[in-house]
Amino acid sequence: MIAGGAGFVGINLATALLDRGDDVVIVDDLSRGTRAAMDRFQGNPKFSFIEVDCSDPDLLDGALDDRVIDQVWHMAANSDIPAGIADYRVDLRQTFMTTVALLELMKRRSIPAIHFASSSAIYGDFGAQLIHEDIGPLLPISNYGAMKLASEAQLRAAHESHVERVSVFRFPNVIGVPATHGVILDFVQKLKATPDCLVVLGNGSQQKGYLHVSDLVAAMLHIADRAEPFAVYNIGPADDGVTVRAIAEMGRDAFSATASIAYGEGNRGWVGDVPRFRYSIQRLTNTGWRPTLDSQTAVARAIAEIIDQERDR
Amino acid sequence: MIAGGAGFVGINLATALLDRGDDVVIVDDLSRGTRAAMDRFQGNPKFSFIEVDCSDPDLLDGALDDRVIDQVWHMAANSDIPAGIADYRVDLRQTFMTTVALLELMKRRSIPAIHFASSSAIYGDFGAQLIHEDIGPLLPISNYGAMKLASEAQLRAAHESHVERVSVFRFPNVIGVPATHGVILDFVQKLKATPDCLVVLGNGSQQKGYLHVSDLVAAMLHIADRAEPFAVYNIGPADDGVTVRAIAEMGRDAFSATASIAYGEGNRGWVGDVPRFRYSIQRLTNTGWRPTLDSQTAVARAIAEIIDQERDR
Repeated sequence: MIAGGAGFVGINLATALLDRGDDVVIVDDLSRGTRAAMDRFQGNPKFSFIEVDCSDPDLLDGALDDRVIDQVWHMAANSDIPAGIADYRVDLRQTFMTTVALLELMKRRSIPAIHFASSSAIYGDFGAQLIHEDIGPLLPISNYGAMKLASEAQLRAAHESHVERVSVFRFPNVIGVPATHGVILDFVQKLKATPDCLVVLGNGSQQKGYLHVSDLVAAMLHIADRAEPFAVYNIGPADDGVTVRAIAEMGRDAFSATASIAYGEGNRGWVGDVPRFRYSIQRLTNTGWRPTLDSQTAVARAIAEIIDQERDR
Repeated sequence: MIAGGAGFVGINLATALLDRGDDVVIVDDLSRGTRAAMDRFQGNPKFSFIEVDCSDPDLLDGALDDRVIDQVWHMAANSDIPAGIADYRVDLRQTFMTTVALLELMKRRSIPAIHFASSSAIYGDFGAQLIHEDIGPLLPISNYGAMKLASEAQLRAAHESHVERVSVFRFPNVIGVPATHGVILDFVQKLKATPDCLVVLGNGSQQKGYLHVSDLVAAMLHIADRAEPFAVYNIGPADDGVTVRAIAEMGRDAFSATASIAYGEGNRGWVGDVPRFRYSIQRLTNTGWRPTLDSQTAVARAIAEIIDQERDR
């Protein structure tokens, strides 16, 4: 079962699980994902989709009827960080109460394993310090990060009482298609609207690692298959990332080579955005897995994919 | 404003704040505290009490009417850990949703400062490792600890957006009167019921630090008055604590000297209970403040106070 499976990461995960022969049921409230996005799976007898509010354990339990679930993939969350800042209830319900509801469902149905899409946002701002999984203090600076951390805490408590296996994946910016938000989609849409000028929020010096969704899904399956009792892994590229300026220039070059780029001020794009961080994936690479794409290559591929996606819209 | 002020810590805090001349309004849903406990403050023109559900920002906002609040003390929580294990909604609503509601209230009313009763339970089980405030990973093993950690995360995010000052007090077992729960009250009530035998949950080897509520309140006021933008402090005794066995023997000696003591098995009293920990209060002592009582003295005083409290019941 993939909760929030109609979203960007969920769709890619479902594709990979179906490709390897697993049965997949996606549960999603379609607050962000669309029913049309589920069309790609229709006709596959191993796939089913249920539209349901994943923050309500009774609704979830009823909607699943007599299906037997042996693993929960929890990809449900509010991915619109500014929306969560404007109204705290968005992250609360979509990012945290989904965790609470899924754990209650697992208790009722004795489901033994959950794999959770956490976030590098749980760490907050560590400046130039290398962020490994056991670092402290954890001071998330957005409601989104706070509700991801709250979810991790709840998962840990549930593991102590009734959930046998928990995987926590902490990942930074993930890119690819189908893109619904994020800096690359933003740039491509802006360039499509005004092909002669790209306006960038902030001064462009913000630097982050970018992970292609294909690498993310491969890493999650790799970790889940290890079946550790309580696994916490950073997942990210093996480099220190690329700047917003570099992404803007790559996007401009790919879409509209003659466009000028206008930068704003400050090194934060919005409240809750961490200007830069250095991310350790040593725990992950120690298991023998490495990302196939570095940040720069991932960005280049995602730009091409997203230009292609937006061409027909 | 003290949220959850009709509880054990809240009553002691209100007493101290009134003693120093502050105006105090207690808001409490009386799910654990009692209206009778508020009698001690009646007649003091600087005191008022409002019965209201602190997990609902609209109810809170309405109940406060035109009162001007300049500091929130957030002491509202489910203190019954086993109840929170039996039903996850107890900790969710009473411990976490109160934090969410108070932060929303602060946003609406531009209240600049909040002081939060967190817990050593956010740390989880670090074995013999010394627990300082920046240690990781944070793996709480009870819903109670999870919801306290979730609250801290939400406070951090709110500090980034609209709350000027936050104090987070992480404290272990606090003892004293009016006692409503905890190992000492449990022992005294058992001895009162069966004066010849005290049955102890677990083998008694569990060792913890105990802080007297008078020291806790003094430490909280000390930290709050420092007015740091985001203060996180462990508060506890300066020693490694006393064992359950020692508390049982001290209780027996004080109440019913000839009683026998029967121990159970295992070193955990219940799910979500950490068998022992070592707690650093160096950050606190670096500010010049030290507890006046060690664990053993605090336990002895609390035993006497609680025997006195229970005598008349």
